[in-house]
Amino acid sequence: MIRLHTIGVRVYYEDTDAGGIVYYANYLRFFERARTDWLRGAGISQQELADTEGLNLVVRDCAVQYLRPARLDDLLQVEVNLADAATDVGRASLRIMQRALLLGDPAEGTGVERVLATGTVRVACMDRRTGRPAPLPPRILQLLAEQVAQTVAAGVR
Amino acid sequence: MIRLHTIGVRVYYEDTDAGGIVYYANYLRFFERARTDWLRGAGISQQELADTEGLNLVVRDCAVQYLRPARLDDLLQVEVNLADAATDVGRASLRIMQRALLLGDPAEGTGVERVLATGTVRVACMDRRTGRPAPLPPRILQLLAEQVAQTVAAGVR
Amino acid sequence: MIRLHTIGVRVYYEDTDAGGIVYYANYLRFFERARTDWLRGAGISQQELADTEGLNLVVRDCAVQYLRPARLDDLLQVEVNLADAATDVGRASLRIMQRALLLGDPAEGTGVERVLATGTVRVACMDRRTGRPAPLPPRILQLLAEQVAQTVAAGVR
Amino acid sequence: MIRLHTIGVRVYYEDTDAGGIVYYANYLRFFERARTDWLRGAGISQQELADTEGLNLVVRDCAVQYLRPARLDDLLQVEVNLADAATDVGRASLRIMQRALLLGDPAEGTGVERVLATGTVRVACMDRRTGRPAPLPPRILQLLAEQVAQTVAAGVR
Repeated sequence: MIRLHTIGVRVYYEDTDAGGIVYYANYLRFFERARTDWLRGAGISQQELADTEGLNLVVRDCAVQYLRPARLDDLLQVEVNLADAATDVGRASLRIMQRALLLGDPAEGTGVERVLATGTVRVACMDRRTGRPAPLPPRILQLLAEQVAQTVAAGVR
Repeated sequence: MIRLHTIGVRVYYEDTDAGGIVYYANYLRFFERARTDWLRGAGISQQELADTEGLNLVVRDCAVQYLRPARLDDLLQVEVNLADAATDVGRASLRIMQRALLLGDPAEGTGVERVLATGTVRVACMDRRTGRPAPLPPRILQLLAEQVAQTVAAGVR
Repeated sequence: MIRLHTIGVRVYYEDTDAGGIVYYANYLRFFERARTDWLRGAGISQQELADTEGLNLVVRDCAVQYLRPARLDDLLQVEVNLADAATDVGRASLRIMQRALLLGDPAEGTGVERVLATGTVRVACMDRRTGRPAPLPPRILQLLAEQVAQTVAAGVR
Repeated sequence: MIRLHTIGVRVYYEDTDAGGIVYYANYLRFFERARTDWLRGAGISQQELADTEGLNLVVRDCAVQYLRPARLDDLLQVEVNLADAATDVGRASLRIMQRALLLGDPAEGTGVERVLATGTVRVACMDRRTGRPAPLPPRILQLLAEQVAQTVAAGVR
């Protein structure tokens, strides 16, 4: 698994529900924030993609497993990962593996982390005018190639 | 006060927060649903306004008073009212008075209603291309004039 | 597939995003509304489950396929289905198959419907105090048994 | 006006609507994030207030003026201010003045900032069990007194 990006996400009242935990749909909001920040960090703005190239990134499918609940005030780490460069990067779509983690209490030992939710999101490109699929922007494919190469070079994989 | 429209709004988990009550920002979602249904019921679609006339209805200001909390499963009545036809309808903006009510328990007596929240919302029109203010569509002003006339005729006011 | 319930869901501004379509996480809100109304229609209130039995229904996993976008003002039909009574109903969890449909334009022929999104949601029961899994309430299992029996009797399956 | 706290808020797809701008209710989410971070920065956790003292902070009323729209990818500064220590801090409630700003383009001159929205939010304290008003926690009043004193000492006011 290749780590592409990680962001911190604080849980506010708006994210919780009357069950006292983060509402299940909101993990998809957190996952999308992490994907957006990953692209923005590489100079790829979705607003600009829409304005200058007439392209929207859209989600074709997603799946989430909820392992442990998150609560008000929790500070989550939300990851953008590539599970497998060979099978998950296509010309027309991209499969991203995402996780939401909670860093553990010192009482449980330093550095202990709990996985709260994992998911996969398949992202594709859509022409805004026609609503039809379009190839992924070369910039995104190039970014992925560079990140994969760096990871392989670092022997981290 | 002139009643323009009322809709029912069910409270789901998505509307609540970890305090066990409806999150305060969500009353603005409920209020907007009621305004939209009021216009749609009169044949005025906001999607069509955007597509054919390049106009968006936008909120210029709003205020909400929270009187009692709403809870999961509650069925609210959300109203669109005109407080005063003379002062609240302008060429460029419109002031709407809104309320969210909960119908009372039979135990408290039939027909007892509790006001949960009241608010005012000033709606104006914006040109999508320029982002600048535009006059309200004549259809909306005509709709208001008709509803005011009917109310006066019925002596309800 | 056994139809358990269907609700209408109107698309408001709150549901859309700057791409001009319904935001992907919001289908999970629509799906949850349909599940809640299905249970409420059978006299099962989640607020009451929480208050009297200390139980929350929680989602263990979900998956959504996005086939066509929904837009502002669209009126969706959102379904709660049981794909297979033998494999999808367990003592501790329940797998629900859900769809969001748009009724077609008369221009495309009467009764034509477009599937916008399909998904599966696995629901389980959690003890509010301990946060641990609990068996599904017998009332829910009985409701399912009755709905399956009615469908079989009607030869609809 | 006394600046109590400022946070950065990035605009994601989830915050926008089909009008291409941030949905009006979402400024109340941004304002609440800023208030929460202000309190957390001073060691006051709302989850802990609920768990150990049985208290929820609730909004009694709010008002927002929308001056300019925010768009996808914008990075807002969201402020928590005290307009007047003498009149806005009571034993039972607190009036907070909030703003959302966008830092200007270099093209418009360095340091130019645009005010997108301003608002006031009155916060009070509620006993979770009875649903009745409760005095504000002394820790919050003390925090305010300290911040006011510091501002006066610094001659910033």
